Amino acid sequence: MDGPSGALHPFLRGVDWLIGTWEGTGRGIYATIEPFDYGEEIRFSDVGRPFLLYAQRTWSLADGQPLHAETGWLRPREDGRIELIVAQATGVGEVDEGTVDGRRISLDSVAVTPTSTGASASQVSRRIEVSADGSTLRYTLDMEAVGQPLQRHLEAELRRVEA
Amino acid sequence: MDGPSGALHPFLRGVDWLIGTWEGTGRGIYATIEPFDYGEEIRFSDVGRPFLLYAQRTWSLADGQPLHAETGWLRPREDGRIELIVAQATGVGEVDEGTVDGRRISLDSVAVTPTSTGASASQVSRRIEVSADGSTLRYTLDMEAVGQPLQRHLEAELRRVEA
Repeated sequence: MDGPSGALHPFLRGVDWLIGTWEGTGRGIYATIEPFDYGEEIRFSDVGRPFLLYAQRTWSLADGQPLHAETGWLRPREDGRIELIVAQATGVGEVDEGTVDGRRISLDSVAVTPTSTGASASQVSRRIEVSADGSTLRYTLDMEAVGQPLQRHLEAELRRVEA
Repeated sequence: MDGPSGALHPFLRGVDWLIGTWEGTGRGIYATIEPFDYGEEIRFSDVGRPFLLYAQRTWSLADGQPLHAETGWLRPREDGRIELIVAQATGVGEVDEGTVDGRRISLDSVAVTPTSTGASASQVSRRIEVSADGSTLRYTLDMEAVGQPLQRHLEAELRRVEA
């Protein structure tokens, strides 16, 4: 669904360091589960509009089986504000708002809306950071879910594999 | 982000007629706007999981400029139930639930959650239907927004361009 892109939309100049494909590994933890390690691919794609297409998938490092997948849109706004709209394949809609500060994005959910059979989460906080040389993306995801307080759920480190 | 796919997941057998790429045109109407005509591409992709990746974009037939874009997941469940999780690029998260009946899907929103700068909508109803020969997809979208009651907003007809 990526379109050919010309000059970057002015709204995207503050997040151009995100654009591309990233691959790496992460670790999942939570009060209610056994820790697990996962492989991950993340793409932020310029589609010639004032937002980036976001797509992500993970797989088990133990057996290669697919785990999570999500897709959506990253919407930089004025004054360093930014929004992320996420559709999680587990049956959850997520709408986040936050800020961009240099190469760091902080997002907190303003709405987490599961389907009746979807995963249970009520609050999500995401932090995304890219290294000064542009080669490494690290993120953390904290989650309030299944009656547990907000706590670390995911942390991962990915390398740029494609501009 | 599409993965190579082997045998279709059993959950997808009831919606395999949707899988592929569709192109066509539609008409947008609403109490508060001038009617407009748009071109559209829709993709439903098998990613080897019990859900389909959904991606869509529209453009103006008047001047070719991009209009709307959304992406998400279609999740068939048991007993003819189905769920759609949508991230709208206009800054709206949408979670729908409904039913599959033959080649017809009826979905009504259970949550429509805009960002603080996102488009205003509070209720969405989608109907998607594919012709018996599998060549034509028609849909309608009704919307409650900007203080207006639920009413027709979009209707479109698309042809299969790729299996």
